[in-house]
Formats: sequence, structure tokens, C-alpha cells
Amino acid sequence: MKTNPGRFFEDYRLGELIRHAVPRTVSGGERALYHALYPARGALYSSDEFARACGLAAAPIDDLAAFHLVFGKTVPDISLNAVANLGYAEGRWLKPVWPGDTLAAESTVIGLRENSNGTSGVVWVRTRGLNQRGEAVLEYVRWVMVRKRHADAPVPVSVVPDLASAVAAADLVLPEGLDFSRYDFALAGEPHRWGDYAPGERIDHVDGVTIEEAEHMIATRLWQNTAKVHFDATQQPDGRRLIYGGHVISLARALSFNGLANAQMIVALNAGVHANPCFAGDTVRAWSEVLDRAETAAPGVGAIRLRLVAVKDGAASFALRGENGKYAPEVLLDLDYWALMPT
Amino acid sequence: MKTNPGRFFEDYRLGELIRHAVPRTVSGGERALYHALYPARGALYSSDEFARACGLAAAPIDDLAAFHLVFGKTVPDISLNAVANLGYAEGRWLKPVWPGDTLAAESTVIGLRENSNGTSGVVWVRTRGLNQRGEAVLEYVRWVMVRKRHADAPVPVSVVPDLASAVAAADLVLPEGLDFSRYDFALAGEPHRWGDYAPGERIDHVDGVTIEEAEHMIATRLWQNTAKVHFDATQQPDGRRLIYGGHVISLARALSFNGLANAQMIVALNAGVHANPCFAGDTVRAWSEVLDRAETAAPGVGAIRLRLVAVKDGAASFALRGENGKYAPEVLLDLDYWALMPT
Amino acid sequence: MKTNPGRFFEDYRLGELIRHAVPRTVSGGERALYHALYPARGALYSSDEFARACGLAAAPIDDLAAFHLVFGKTVPDISLNAVANLGYAEGRWLKPVWPGDTLAAESTVIGLRENSNGTSGVVWVRTRGLNQRGEAVLEYVRWVMVRKRHADAPVPVSVVPDLASAVAAADLVLPEGLDFSRYDFALAGEPHRWGDYAPGERIDHVDGVTIEEAEHMIATRLWQNTAKVHFDATQQPDGRRLIYGGHVISLARALSFNGLANAQMIVALNAGVHANPCFAGDTVRAWSEVLDRAETAAPGVGAIRLRLVAVKDGAASFALRGENGKYAPEVLLDLDYWALMPT
Repeated sequence: MKTNPGRFFEDYRLGELIRHAVPRTVSGGERALYHALYPARGALYSSDEFARACGLAAAPIDDLAAFHLVFGKTVPDISLNAVANLGYAEGRWLKPVWPGDTLAAESTVIGLRENSNGTSGVVWVRTRGLNQRGEAVLEYVRWVMVRKRHADAPVPVSVVPDLASAVAAADLVLPEGLDFSRYDFALAGEPHRWGDYAPGERIDHVDGVTIEEAEHMIATRLWQNTAKVHFDATQQPDGRRLIYGGHVISLARALSFNGLANAQMIVALNAGVHANPCFAGDTVRAWSEVLDRAETAAPGVGAIRLRLVAVKDGAASFALRGENGKYAPEVLLDLDYWALMPT
Repeated sequence: MKTNPGRFFEDYRLGELIRHAVPRTVSGGERALYHALYPARGALYSSDEFARACGLAAAPIDDLAAFHLVFGKTVPDISLNAVANLGYAEGRWLKPVWPGDTLAAESTVIGLRENSNGTSGVVWVRTRGLNQRGEAVLEYVRWVMVRKRHADAPVPVSVVPDLASAVAAADLVLPEGLDFSRYDFALAGEPHRWGDYAPGERIDHVDGVTIEEAEHMIATRLWQNTAKVHFDATQQPDGRRLIYGGHVISLARALSFNGLANAQMIVALNAGVHANPCFAGDTVRAWSEVLDRAETAAPGVGAIRLRLVAVKDGAASFALRGENGKYAPEVLLDLDYWALMPT
Repeated sequence: MKTNPGRFFEDYRLGELIRHAVPRTVSGGERALYHALYPARGALYSSDEFARACGLAAAPIDDLAAFHLVFGKTVPDISLNAVANLGYAEGRWLKPVWPGDTLAAESTVIGLRENSNGTSGVVWVRTRGLNQRGEAVLEYVRWVMVRKRHADAPVPVSVVPDLASAVAAADLVLPEGLDFSRYDFALAGEPHRWGDYAPGERIDHVDGVTIEEAEHMIATRLWQNTAKVHFDATQQPDGRRLIYGGHVISLARALSFNGLANAQMIVALNAGVHANPCFAGDTVRAWSEVLDRAETAAPGVGAIRLRLVAVKDGAASFALRGENGKYAPEVLLDLDYWALMPT
């Protein structure tokens, strides 16, 4: 058979390096589409002039666009037979991605554990995105539950990687030359500085977007993510296509502009959970909580650690988990990341 | 509170200059999306070669794309709490916008008048779009009805600006180098010259487009227009998102190619009214009326003043106003503009 | 009347050359949109680096995007009054199209035959796409059934062109410099070489995509194809817009990546039939059959002739025609083309 059936749990080997297919060159086209698909207004990604005033050569491709591009390449090898996308950790953006760059991706299997039911297992991979010079532009760990092809297939000894609960502030990598000392708050859209945000503070980002089938499919294809569940209505009993979790991440991040306009660059992904599925017709809103702050070595640049929560339909009541400790049914996403802000 | 609640009527001061946030660099990506979202076929905006044969360096970004980009930036400061977008006047395009340009926007408050009900008022602003060299690329006056935060807030003395009913032909600004003396009518799509259009002539543009939710949201986001009513179905009692008026303008203008293929560049916006709201499912058609003609100093270039009317569903019966003087219910847009045509 | 009513059967003259309007410059924007609209993953079109490793200057615009752009230009002159798009033949891609190129199109009328009912006729045209240097980038023959304006209009003597049933392998034109001798199968996504495919072999491409109204309209407009039936819901008794046949071609071709990832470049279109209409809500799947193979003069490059069949909803049972010889109702497209593959 010439088509790709995807890997099953027993096909992964600890330490194995998987080179993912289909490198991708990005241009102003991907940037324009990112702005058309999400209410993204971060000035650093919208304006070459603003980026230059911050010490960069031009506006990079949005951090999350780079993430989705790399993630999309891993889907045929990692999650085609995935039952669930369980989590992210130790994500770091290492270099900006510029129009003209070509991204490729590779993953190392760093953990394997069969589930007790014997029909599936959890696979941990550390994925790296590489540019045309072979430089890593981002890396992250992801773990997914993958079906076994045969319930009686032999499985390897369990190895569960020891992952950091968050990227340490000292390990954040800042783009070369980044300098917020002449940052234009009026052009950026809000006056709030790094020092204006206190750990524990929560922000309701107010705005909401009702999702359409065409939009999430256009977005997901843009990243060459081919998972059937996002595109084929006949795969679901109720004909509703599951929305790519990354679409919700980008939507929530873009909505968070309203209150966090100066949280310009994402530099680390500490953790992330797609708490409940999202479908067309859902209206997505977002709220954030300030988790931590740290200084950086770059002029005028502070790091802020944020929890970003996407919810559907309901008002932003800052609900996260129910009394049973489980995510509330309206919570779509619980994301923990570091961003860079002017001090 | 860190989020932007928008300005209310009592927050505006006469003469105040508002610098709008989030500058934007445009590229071939925005051009491709404009063609994907509207049936735009003007040769000067579609082909670099055609533009060069007309004396320009390359095909500019569509005039209306430049307008929407500038307009979008004003929304968080001007119309977030707007009850209605009342009109446009004295609009002029001053320089072409090229791929690679970065646009910013600023508005001056030129008029304020409280409504007799005391709960809202009308704000007039003159908005300018600026490129990365600080050159004005377009300017226009817009007035909107804005809610008051507090009904008893003190309000300024009423000042209603004296606006021209139309931009005088002598005040039109033509792109530097524009020359239609070797204009290729076959490549442009129609043989009709400036001299072939007579004031009073009306043209039914025949074609119609049925609007989808995904399309108007993609378009509106592309211009970083964040008004809730366009995106959040839960904001409307019937769940129908209001379609950005600029989407209807671009759609009608693109449809007018059929009969006005040679009305290449828009150089002035004399007046504009969004007569009735537009919703997904509406089929938009358009008709035009020739209002005036004027000569220009550029070789082979004439100016034509056109009324562009967008209607929904009904056939193009050239209906505009009912016996009571009000717009007919099927009229969506009544736009009055100057365009440039080969003589 | 200034609008274009389209040509009717009696308006065509044998041997007539029709220059089509509205040249179009392409950029990374069109490339990004192609990837957003179709699950296209061919590495040669996705990555400038991969294309360079194959001897090209950069990744060209997708072959089918170039085809649609040229096709779109012909619509106002050829198929505005078409009752049916009957077939394609003798299609060849002659030069890659690069970002920055400007495409124009022209067609020669090579056949005319009135139908026996006297109300319509068949028009054959040979269309060529030209770049800004006047070089032909592709050519194909298409025939359509066109209505007569007046049933009693005099019609020309019937001339039915003698068309090849397939482009001979010796007539295929390969892109200058193409060299697959260092082809990276891992980056391309599949290990299967030209020699691994045997005539008669059939491949079920597995994946399916459910089509939305917004997507096919965005795609069709991108190619400046203005045929009313694709955009105006009020033109159809049931309000369903007919989906542009080219949208189904691109969708099926992109789906065929799964099993034919190395069938990189389309170099000839031997035949093509839009067997049944496609509408929003249909889930499109595809299967291929290997028809032939041929060697080429380029290093490491073989040619493969493929039948690509798009079907809707039903599983890929490889059904093509019923016992009566007619296409099965689920068949949307039957396309016969030559592609280039690493040997």
C-alpha cells in the first residue's frame, strides 16, 4: 500500500529521530493570511517599521504561525492515529522566522508508556523546527495518546520523561538585537508596561469570535496539517469537524491583544492543554492570568509568564476547573507561556 | 482595567489629534487576498506590467484596500461604541500604496454635536493614512454616532464642520507619472473610454455575489477592524453578524468592473452612506450612475464622478429612495466617488 | 450596453484569436492561498530549498494555480454563456511560473459545431498562457457547449478538430535544469519511486474534505473566474452554487499526495471530464490509476501518466462508470495527466 496509514504505538522506538516531510518557505502571503484568520494586532508582527524600531531587521512571521507550521509537519508521523493530544512542555522560540525562510521539522522520541488497557499508549516527542541554515527556530515537547495497531503487539519498557513544569526565566532565548528602550506605546495600542502587571492579576479580554467551518479549515490547511478530523465531516457521527487546537491557541492569543497589547513576542510554551473540543458555531473568548515576571538582559525588555484560557460561549467568569478538579466544560484551552514586554 | 472600553462621546475634544495604533506593512499577500475576497479585476491593480505601461512602478495595493487598512486602525478609537456610521466626505487618495509600504493612521476631531436625546452624540473626524516616510497616502472625513458613557456628562459646544458636497475636480491628486496614452483596452477588458460615459447614464452591473459569514470576517480581520458586531454572533439577538460596510463597498466596486472596467483608480470619495445593514446570505448586486466628468493634467487621463449603489437580493431596478425620501430597503450602499479613466 | 453579455455560439469565427483581458501578477500571496485552500503538500511547490535541490531557481507557483489563472481569464470570452464544460485535451505546461511573473492568456478558435437542436453549439479553443516576456507557460484545448443568441442565426460549417487522445511522452516539456538525481525522499514525504508504480495500479488516497461555500468562492475568485453560477445563490433553483470544476481538480490533486507524494510536477493534461456537478457539503475523495510510464531526458526524472478520479461522499470503491457506460453519480472528475517523478 502506497498511502500513509500513520504510525501506531508499537512503531515508535525510544531515542528515534524522525525527520518530518514537506519543508515550507514562508512569505508575506502567510503573514497576510495570519492577519486575515485571527484578530492579530501585535505591532511587532504587523509592521516592519515597528519591528525595526525594536532592533529587528523586519517583522518576523508570528511566533504561533511558526509553531503551527512546525507542528503541522509532525502530524503525519506523530498524530495521525492519535486519540488525544495530551500536552506540551519545554517549548522555546529560539530564532525569529522571516519571510523567505524555509522551515523543516524533526522529532526525537523521548518517552513511551503503554496504557493499562493495552490498546494504546502515550508517546512523548521533542520536536525542533529548523530553518534553511539548519538553525533551530523553535523546540517543544508534545505528548499524545496513540492507538496500537495490534493489542498484543510487544511494547517497550515504559520511559516517562522528566519535564520541567515551566521554562526557567534564565533559559529564555531573546531575539538577537531586541531592544524595547524606544518602544512606542501609542503605536502598539496600549500604555501598560511590564511593571504594570502583577502576578495574580486576571484580565478578561472582552471580545469574542464565532467560528466558521471555512475559517478553521483554511487556517489548518495553511499549516499543512492534514488530520482527517478537521476536514472530513463524514468522520464524525454528528458531522461536526473538530477544530485544530492550534486554531484556538491563535484565536485566544489574538483576542488577548485587548489588555495585553504589549506582550509582544512569545518566547516559551511552559504547558498547554486542550481542555475540551471546539466546533464551528462556538464563540471563543479569552482571559489571562499573570503568573510570573522576570527581568531579561535585553534593553527595556521584561519577561512575563501568562496563563491564557480560551472559553466558549459563556461570559469570561474566569472559571477554569470545577470542584472535581476537572476543567469546566466551557474551557477550551489552558496555555502557560512566557512573553516579552517593554519595561 | 487594562482592556480598551473605547471612547464615549464625552471623551472627544475638538481639535484633538488621535494617533491610531498598530501600523501595518502590506505585501503581495494582501493583494492576493483582496483578489480572493472580491471579484476585483481592474488591470492596473492586477498586473505589474499593465501598471508599468501606465507609468507606474508596479501595481499598487487596491485603493480600497488602503482605505480599509487605514479605516481599521481608527475603529478602536473612533467607533468601538458607535451606534451608527453616518457618512463620509472629502476623501482623497494622495499617493499609491505599494507592497512593502507600512501604513499608520491618525485622526483629528473636527466636529462634535450632542444628540437631543442626551444619550449620544455625533463625532466628526478627519483621518489621514500615512506611509513609512510620513507622507499622507489618503485622507477622509467620517462621522459616527457615539454613545455617551454617562447621560449627564458635560458636553462641549456644538461644532458641525462645513464639508464639501463633493471634492472639486481641481483638487483631485493624480499618481505621479500616470499616463493612459498607451492604454491597452483589450487587456483592460472593455473598450469604453471616458468620453463614452455621459452624466445621467446608469449601468446595471449584472453580476451578484451571495455573502458568507467566513468571507466577510476574513476580509474585516485582514484590515484589523475589530468591531465586535462583525465577529461575535452572540452580540446580536438573531445571531447574525453585521457585515462591515467596507466589505460591501469593495464588493460593489469589484462588481462594477462589468461596465466600468476602465474606471481604474479611485481618487476621491465625495460621499458615502451605508443605507441598510447587510448580513450573510444576502446576494449583493450593484449599479452605477455617471454624475460628472472632468479633464485632468495627466496624459490620456480623464476623471469620472460615479454614484455606486449596492443592493441586495432584488434585481437592479435602479431603485434608490422611496417616495418618503428614505433609502429603499434593498439599498445597502450609496457611494459617490471620482475615478480615473483613459480618454 | 456597456456590460459584457458574453459571446454566443454564432459570435465565434474559426481561426479567430481572442486576447483575454486582465493580466495578473503572482506572488507569495497566491502561493500561500493555494496552500490554505487545498491540502497541497508537494515539496517542490512548498519549499524554495527543495526546489533548488531539484535544479530550479525556487519553488514555482503550483502548476494548477497557473492553469486556473489562465483558465479564469478565458471565462468572460469563452464560457459566460456556456451550458457545459465538455472536455480538455492536448494540455502542456511549458515553463514554470515564478512569483513576480505576470500571466496573460489568449485563445484560438479551432473548432465549431452546431448542435442538432439548433439552440447551441460546441466551441473548441486552444488557449495559451503567456508570461511577461511573451513566452508560453502552458497551453490546452478546451471545448464547451455555448448557447446561441438566436436560434435562427446562421452558423459556420462544422469543423471538429482532430485532437490527440493523449500527449505523447516525447512531446512533454520539462522545466529547464530539472534534476531529481539528488531527490530527498524523506523530505518529500514518501519513498515510492517512478519504478515502483506499475500501469494498472490503483491507489485510494484515503482522505476526504467536506467543501464549504466560502472556500470554493474564495478559490474561484482568486483566479478571477467570474462565472455567475459559482457566486450567486439566486441563480440556482435550490440556492446551491455550482462549484468551479477547477476547485475539484486542485482538491483531488492535493488529496493524491497521500500515495503519490513524488508525482511532483504536472506537465501534461491529456483529458479531463467534469462528470457530475459538485456542491458545498459534498465530501470529496480521490483515487488514481497508473496509466503509463515513460523515461525522460532529465537526470533522475521519469514521467508517469495518471488517471485522477474525484468522487463525492461514497467510499473510494474505484467506481467510474455504470453498466450503461455513463459515469457513476458519485464521480465528479475524471482527469488524465502526465506528472514527473524521481526514478
